[in-house]
Amino acid sequence: MKKIGIVMGSDSDLPVAEKAIETLREYEVPFEVHVYSAHRTPAAAAEFAASAGERGFGAIIAFAGKAAHLAGAIAANTTLPVVGVPVKSSNLDGIDALLSTVQMPSGIPVAAVAIDGAVNAALLCIQMLAIEDQELAARLAEKRKEAELSVLAKNRKIEERYNTK
Amino acid sequence: MKKIGIVMGSDSDLPVAEKAIETLREYEVPFEVHVYSAHRTPAAAAEFAASAGERGFGAIIAFAGKAAHLAGAIAANTTLPVVGVPVKSSNLDGIDALLSTVQMPSGIPVAAVAIDGAVNAALLCIQMLAIEDQELAARLAEKRKEAELSVLAKNRKIEERYNTK
Amino acid sequence: MKKIGIVMGSDSDLPVAEKAIETLREYEVPFEVHVYSAHRTPAAAAEFAASAGERGFGAIIAFAGKAAHLAGAIAANTTLPVVGVPVKSSNLDGIDALLSTVQMPSGIPVAAVAIDGAVNAALLCIQMLAIEDQELAARLAEKRKEAELSVLAKNRKIEERYNTK
Amino acid sequence: MKKIGIVMGSDSDLPVAEKAIETLREYEVPFEVHVYSAHRTPAAAAEFAASAGERGFGAIIAFAGKAAHLAGAIAANTTLPVVGVPVKSSNLDGIDALLSTVQMPSGIPVAAVAIDGAVNAALLCIQMLAIEDQELAARLAEKRKEAELSVLAKNRKIEERYNTK
Amino acid sequence: MKKIGIVMGSDSDLPVAEKAIETLREYEVPFEVHVYSAHRTPAAAAEFAASAGERGFGAIIAFAGKAAHLAGAIAANTTLPVVGVPVKSSNLDGIDALLSTVQMPSGIPVAAVAIDGAVNAALLCIQMLAIEDQELAARLAEKRKEAELSVLAKNRKIEERYNTK
Amino acid sequence: MKKIGIVMGSDSDLPVAEKAIETLREYEVPFEVHVYSAHRTPAAAAEFAASAGERGFGAIIAFAGKAAHLAGAIAANTTLPVVGVPVKSSNLDGIDALLSTVQMPSGIPVAAVAIDGAVNAALLCIQMLAIEDQELAARLAEKRKEAELSVLAKNRKIEERYNTK
Amino acid sequence: MKKIGIVMGSDSDLPVAEKAIETLREYEVPFEVHVYSAHRTPAAAAEFAASAGERGFGAIIAFAGKAAHLAGAIAANTTLPVVGVPVKSSNLDGIDALLSTVQMPSGIPVAAVAIDGAVNAALLCIQMLAIEDQELAARLAEKRKEAELSVLAKNRKIEERYNTK
Amino acid sequence: MKKIGIVMGSDSDLPVAEKAIETLREYEVPFEVHVYSAHRTPAAAAEFAASAGERGFGAIIAFAGKAAHLAGAIAANTTLPVVGVPVKSSNLDGIDALLSTVQMPSGIPVAAVAIDGAVNAALLCIQMLAIEDQELAARLAEKRKEAELSVLAKNRKIEERYNTK
Repeated sequence: MKKIGIVMGSDSDLPVAEKAIETLREYEVPFEVHVYSAHRTPAAAAEFAASAGERGFGAIIAFAGKAAHLAGAIAANTTLPVVGVPVKSSNLDGIDALLSTVQMPSGIPVAAVAIDGAVNAALLCIQMLAIEDQELAARLAEKRKEAELSVLAKNRKIEERYNTK
Repeated sequence: MKKIGIVMGSDSDLPVAEKAIETLREYEVPFEVHVYSAHRTPAAAAEFAASAGERGFGAIIAFAGKAAHLAGAIAANTTLPVVGVPVKSSNLDGIDALLSTVQMPSGIPVAAVAIDGAVNAALLCIQMLAIEDQELAARLAEKRKEAELSVLAKNRKIEERYNTK
Repeated sequence: MKKIGIVMGSDSDLPVAEKAIETLREYEVPFEVHVYSAHRTPAAAAEFAASAGERGFGAIIAFAGKAAHLAGAIAANTTLPVVGVPVKSSNLDGIDALLSTVQMPSGIPVAAVAIDGAVNAALLCIQMLAIEDQELAARLAEKRKEAELSVLAKNRKIEERYNTK
Repeated sequence: MKKIGIVMGSDSDLPVAEKAIETLREYEVPFEVHVYSAHRTPAAAAEFAASAGERGFGAIIAFAGKAAHLAGAIAANTTLPVVGVPVKSSNLDGIDALLSTVQMPSGIPVAAVAIDGAVNAALLCIQMLAIEDQELAARLAEKRKEAELSVLAKNRKIEERYNTK
Repeated sequence: MKKIGIVMGSDSDLPVAEKAIETLREYEVPFEVHVYSAHRTPAAAAEFAASAGERGFGAIIAFAGKAAHLAGAIAANTTLPVVGVPVKSSNLDGIDALLSTVQMPSGIPVAAVAIDGAVNAALLCIQMLAIEDQELAARLAEKRKEAELSVLAKNRKIEERYNTK
Repeated sequence: MKKIGIVMGSDSDLPVAEKAIETLREYEVPFEVHVYSAHRTPAAAAEFAASAGERGFGAIIAFAGKAAHLAGAIAANTTLPVVGVPVKSSNLDGIDALLSTVQMPSGIPVAAVAIDGAVNAALLCIQMLAIEDQELAARLAEKRKEAELSVLAKNRKIEERYNTK
Repeated sequence: MKKIGIVMGSDSDLPVAEKAIETLREYEVPFEVHVYSAHRTPAAAAEFAASAGERGFGAIIAFAGKAAHLAGAIAANTTLPVVGVPVKSSNLDGIDALLSTVQMPSGIPVAAVAIDGAVNAALLCIQMLAIEDQELAARLAEKRKEAELSVLAKNRKIEERYNTK
Repeated sequence: MKKIGIVMGSDSDLPVAEKAIETLREYEVPFEVHVYSAHRTPAAAAEFAASAGERGFGAIIAFAGKAAHLAGAIAANTTLPVVGVPVKSSNLDGIDALLSTVQMPSGIPVAAVAIDGAVNAALLCIQMLAIEDQELAARLAEKRKEAELSVLAKNRKIEERYNTK
């Protein structure tokens, strides 16, 4: 199976990124984690992106806050799909990172998820790999079913608590 | 090759969606176009999404404006990757559609692109298919190279016009 | 009397939703509480909405945060009036949920209230029931009067404290 | 049947309000149209609201732009359900009117619809009347069905144009 | 001397309003404090405003949060100058109250100050009274001078701490 | 009677400022118009403000767009009341000018009106002068009455057109 | 004299960039113009930035819209001062480009100017060169004086037109 | 070496400003710190700016929150480069200060950095001085290299922790 690259602009993004790591582990999808900054290590970030295809990556997730350029800088150097996670920092509630991640120019796509949306970033990559991997697709469907049942179980609890017969 | 589903919330989204269609044609990636509204035809939209996997789709692009629920409604009914294109409508410059598309809850990912970002939505789907399709990957790399050369040609023109030796 | 449906996208919305429940109890208006997610249990949410008319509901309140699609998903499957309460989540202060709730397309109305505005959502439903229920209308008028007197009592206290004769 | 009150803050809101009028006519729901400003004719606005219950109104729609206080001013003087339509003016794309309409304090609900969302405001009132009016409810369901079929017809057209068999 | 009216939409606004009270006391400008809500006690608020001119008020300060209609409701019922203080509430950081206060329609002015800007609201009223009150004008100039000296004293402290000779 | 100072940051603000001029003429309130920029002629702006009290001004209106510092720069150099009109420029719809005008620090008040709110800026100044000028106060009340009657006349027209007896 | 580098992310930024070019010409400051995209020609952009110091540049101006990464990408590859001009594109009025340009992480500064603020970007670079260039400093002071006189001339015109003696 | 002026609008900005001071010390660049308010001490601020060139300053950093006029007020009185740091205050998360700082009119540039971006403000000034100071330029390059190595060291740590060989 192709592996997923996880790149953080700063190790301070780790608490958010760990939810993506957990999700990938849950699905037994191989991954690699790196800290490369679009601004502090532009060459290393570009190099990682440029060689990611040959090195067996199927997709890359980039975490960054503020003027979040990392996903765009990765995407500029690979044609693998790149998922960008805008990370909330101390100001502006993450709207700066969201706009910097999602408003990419024509030709260089980034797939943006919600602010701090690490789980969905991982799921999106798993969905991409599952396009040609029946087993993985089945696991996605199964977990989706479990999530549905979990909500319905919560629903019954709430129903019992609030609804009189 | 898996095909790409293009779904519009309204046929008024067609002028934006056509840029995705053109891009898919340019890459000779098969696709289907539909108009299903998350609100006016919820059953048809859900049904389309639920059967998309079996019907040979690899990924789905959803176009919607305002409280843009279509991408989320599709994603809720399939585990295929779903790309959401927020469409600018007459008010709020598309920020409503962007937030409605990107701020998805954990578990149901949508890959958001820029407001009216139809070309990138198509490219993202092509990149997903190219994970396991060497030829398609090569075509992406080639076109990327062409885009680079086109910018560099423009650069030379500008250099000649403005820069004295 | 018709009953009011209260639907939460997640049981984490319960602390907000409970204020609606209290308000309905205060007015002795019957209600049912459920947890149905537009994204994790789309079929259950649609089914609940589709059958709500026959099952004796008069109106439905939907609570959801972020890309708050629940109210819209309910409204797409019923012609009962649907009130949407945008719930503030950890980012963006609820503006994402507000725009996702209120910017509905023509034909599928949702009545949006303030971010976390659970009391008003309940009152709005009670007002709807009171259109054809004189007694309920009288109770609304009475409580409105009480609220007015309570503000005037606070006014007198403040006047005594700050205003010299 | 109870009638619907339509109140505009200014006659410049008429082009928007006319879509609500058309919708009410389409459903044969009686209505009255007025121009009362929360700021220029506060007494007339309050008086209209205070007497609306006795005068046979079932619900009131208020149209206003900028610091859109009209819906709130009406709601403060009646316990009938009040629907607020934020009207876009020359600046800020209607976000000022939206926030002024929707962020009402606890106790005095206003049902906000989308910016310039006149059709939905009317539909919402019709839905309210339909809670206790089977025939009106049937008409709503029927028109909803028609809207669904109209989207599906558009879908077929688009399918024929773009999708090769 | 004319007195200043201080009106709060809710007694929860008191911590903010007290800074205006302190400022008026500091300048020995007479005032009256009231709690009148634009929504819960619209008649009392209108009556207060309508009689304020005769009752010896020179200007009125209104404090309100969220869909902050109070200043506008006061201004609609008097031609005295009305200063609006947008009060920050639990959501949206006060931007809702600011827009609801400042975006008044032509003909009914409200003088808006900063979010939670109680001191400036008081100073603005004092400046208005000082237009025709030399002594008060002199006191304003004096205090302004003191504020200037206080900043310059802080400057010297900082200079001593950081700047080597 | 004290006169009103009208200061524009640029003569491109004149089309907006002229509505303030017309309003002052309508009330026969004397005024002076100037172009002083907080940034291009800081000394002239400061000097104008500093001497305005002695020169017989009662209040000053400042028009500025973008990082609209003019009202603040005037207010920093006088204790006369200063009204700030945020002027919409080619970007950001005037929200930059609004925040730059209204978010003044404690101690240096500016009375902000709506974006491009020139008429209300003039009315606010007239209201200030009317605190101690019975005749002017009477004129304000009279015109307010006229505005009310004009709305009520429009109301009757609309009523005749839309409301069947 | 060191020269100024002008880099556009796309030749569509030229109409904005030309105002910077005119300003540099007016001051007889040498410059070079280039089109390098952070996303389409990342290597060329990085290379230009990395060699700019040796090639005699004193500062670099970068123009970009949407997720405006160019200024940051240049700044990541040089320690020369980099000025970023956020360019307004078809959506969001330039706020996306502004936040993407200005919210840079600690360690990699970008000097942001106003949306479409090309003239000021050029002036800022000229001011930087003038730190150690007396003649250039004198020219800046002179033109500043001219601008002041031009405003004062406009002031006199306006005074003559509106102010009666 | 020219010195850098650091000016705060209030001594409450000191915690933010100290990071700029530390950075300047780290690079052994001389500086002076002052507290001058654009609004409370406009004359002192203007005087400081006007004489800064003669007094040996090379650039000035201004810190201010809310309607952050200080950088603009300094820039209006000098042709030295002025860097503006928008300081986050209790409301609006610093967006008011950012827009007030960055949206300067043509002719009077301010170089804006991120909200609370004190380190980058200092680095920007150091970069300006380094245009004509080889040694300082070398120090910048060296520290940039150190920052790069520090990120790469963090990367190795993360790699060891998460990536299996």
